[in-house]
Amino acid sequence: MAIKIGIVGYGNLGKGVETELALNPDMELTGVFTRRDPAQVPSNAAVYPLDEITDFKDKIDVLILCGGSKSDIPVQAPVLQQNFHTVNSYDNHAEIPAHFDSINETALTNQTVGVIATGWDPGLFSLNRLVAESVLPKGETYTFWGKGVSQGHSDAIRRVAGVKLGVQYTLPNDDLITEIKEGKEVSYTKTSSHKRVCYVVPEEGADKEGITKDIQTMKDYFAEYESEVHFINEAEFYQQHTGMPHGGRVIRRGYTDEANMAVYEFSLDLDSNPQFTAAAAIAYARAAYRLAQEKQYGAKTVFDIAPAYLSPKSGAELRKELL
Amino acid sequence: MAIKIGIVGYGNLGKGVETELALNPDMELTGVFTRRDPAQVPSNAAVYPLDEITDFKDKIDVLILCGGSKSDIPVQAPVLQQNFHTVNSYDNHAEIPAHFDSINETALTNQTVGVIATGWDPGLFSLNRLVAESVLPKGETYTFWGKGVSQGHSDAIRRVAGVKLGVQYTLPNDDLITEIKEGKEVSYTKTSSHKRVCYVVPEEGADKEGITKDIQTMKDYFAEYESEVHFINEAEFYQQHTGMPHGGRVIRRGYTDEANMAVYEFSLDLDSNPQFTAAAAIAYARAAYRLAQEKQYGAKTVFDIAPAYLSPKSGAELRKELL
Repeated sequence: MAIKIGIVGYGNLGKGVETELALNPDMELTGVFTRRDPAQVPSNAAVYPLDEITDFKDKIDVLILCGGSKSDIPVQAPVLQQNFHTVNSYDNHAEIPAHFDSINETALTNQTVGVIATGWDPGLFSLNRLVAESVLPKGETYTFWGKGVSQGHSDAIRRVAGVKLGVQYTLPNDDLITEIKEGKEVSYTKTSSHKRVCYVVPEEGADKEGITKDIQTMKDYFAEYESEVHFINEAEFYQQHTGMPHGGRVIRRGYTDEANMAVYEFSLDLDSNPQFTAAAAIAYARAAYRLAQEKQYGAKTVFDIAPAYLSPKSGAELRKELL
Repeated sequence: MAIKIGIVGYGNLGKGVETELALNPDMELTGVFTRRDPAQVPSNAAVYPLDEITDFKDKIDVLILCGGSKSDIPVQAPVLQQNFHTVNSYDNHAEIPAHFDSINETALTNQTVGVIATGWDPGLFSLNRLVAESVLPKGETYTFWGKGVSQGHSDAIRRVAGVKLGVQYTLPNDDLITEIKEGKEVSYTKTSSHKRVCYVVPEEGADKEGITKDIQTMKDYFAEYESEVHFINEAEFYQQHTGMPHGGRVIRRGYTDEANMAVYEFSLDLDSNPQFTAAAAIAYARAAYRLAQEKQYGAKTVFDIAPAYLSPKSGAELRKELL
């Protein structure tokens, strides 16, 4: 019998979950839950008002929470956790410990499973940071993001006066990556190791120099980085800059003794960031379903879940085909 | 209190475990067990005859089995499993399912934990094959090995008449790797995707043409591959070809919808293959110790072990530092 999934929130991530579920024959989409008017949500699945979701308590195995990390997940997740097994892609790294504790308490009280912070960073990148440092205790781990579109930074550009359309690409410092893998001593900080490149369509008659200055001096977003601003026209924007590619890599340069280096690297190159994030959440939804069947209640992260739970295959199949 | 480790077998892997244990302050080496005369084993630890190992049943937490996969592990592992929690790096892929069943039965009967087939392939490569196909069900997974030294093939060269010294490097087809990542359709087979390059020091007066022919036509080792043979002198061999580097990569090219590709890649570049294999076995020995404390007996693989068990850090530390 298929695992019955509910989607909460139908932005890019929610749409991605609907798309990726079609690739997983052991799962089925029961419905999409929204705060909007359900008639306005362009899903192929049944769409229901979010405030009716409790009626689906016995009709859904796992809810995948697709709201934003800034204001949706912190509010929705603890409430939904009372009645449902959930998976989310909460990505506010600094707040993850508190989010874990909150979900864990509710999940244990209500005998539910809540898998938090899936996706790729946090998520698969975190998993690789853990495995890399466990196997290679002597060494340094580096994370690089991009080339890819940062939604948060693109949103920030669009809030600048005079900006009609805008997108921001994060680019890693490829020379630094090469030096790390060659064993050279490098000085890595998140800001010095990435560049931010912005493509902006200005409003008619807008002050381009002013826009550039406003972007390049924006604190916490651009001021700390080498940031470029390029002006383009609307046609070019729609032709070349509407995709949502992203990716990056985790590298650990370890030493197995004084003379011997070991470079451990995990990388992703994604045409669609939200679709891949959705695909990861779905694999962890499969795990959540199984953990619930085994009554392993509480909050879980990618660190707490044995990889076999992610696959629809049996242990014997996995050992024969993939080990 | 430190986790007490015993090493069974003191070849390259056993030496590697001794070296890597020094990098893990939560572990200590209780002793090395050997079939040789203990006086002849150049370890810094206490060395004991293997046939006295049962006396150490209550003095060792986990045994790391470092014998060969061909004839040592299949014989030793099921016997030692009766009295000890064990970790091995058994790498005979075709026989792993049977090995798992054998260890599992003995481990369940005797309430012990046996983690089999750790290392990198099988091991971390297997783990990534599983995660990659679980997250990206639509796609293809490719494994490439090298550049690195294959011990089995180097041994095979040295058995050829007229060969004094020899080493074999496995090289991946880099063009094919590029094509896969670019989304091109490729025809991958293990044999067509790798090249074998041999460096041979001939005995004085040996028939070089004969040696080349004997190597290039050797079934199951070289005949199926593009295989090169180069003759070098003894000085060059000792200067340039005594290291044991290896590595490789697992690539899954997945599709998150008809238009969007996702390239998942895991790679290792190792100056010392046996030291890294030892380092991985040690992380899984930590997991074995904890599983035993939780009475989760039986055979386990990298698929069955939650990543957090590999790290000496607490769950809270991991969430704060690495998620």
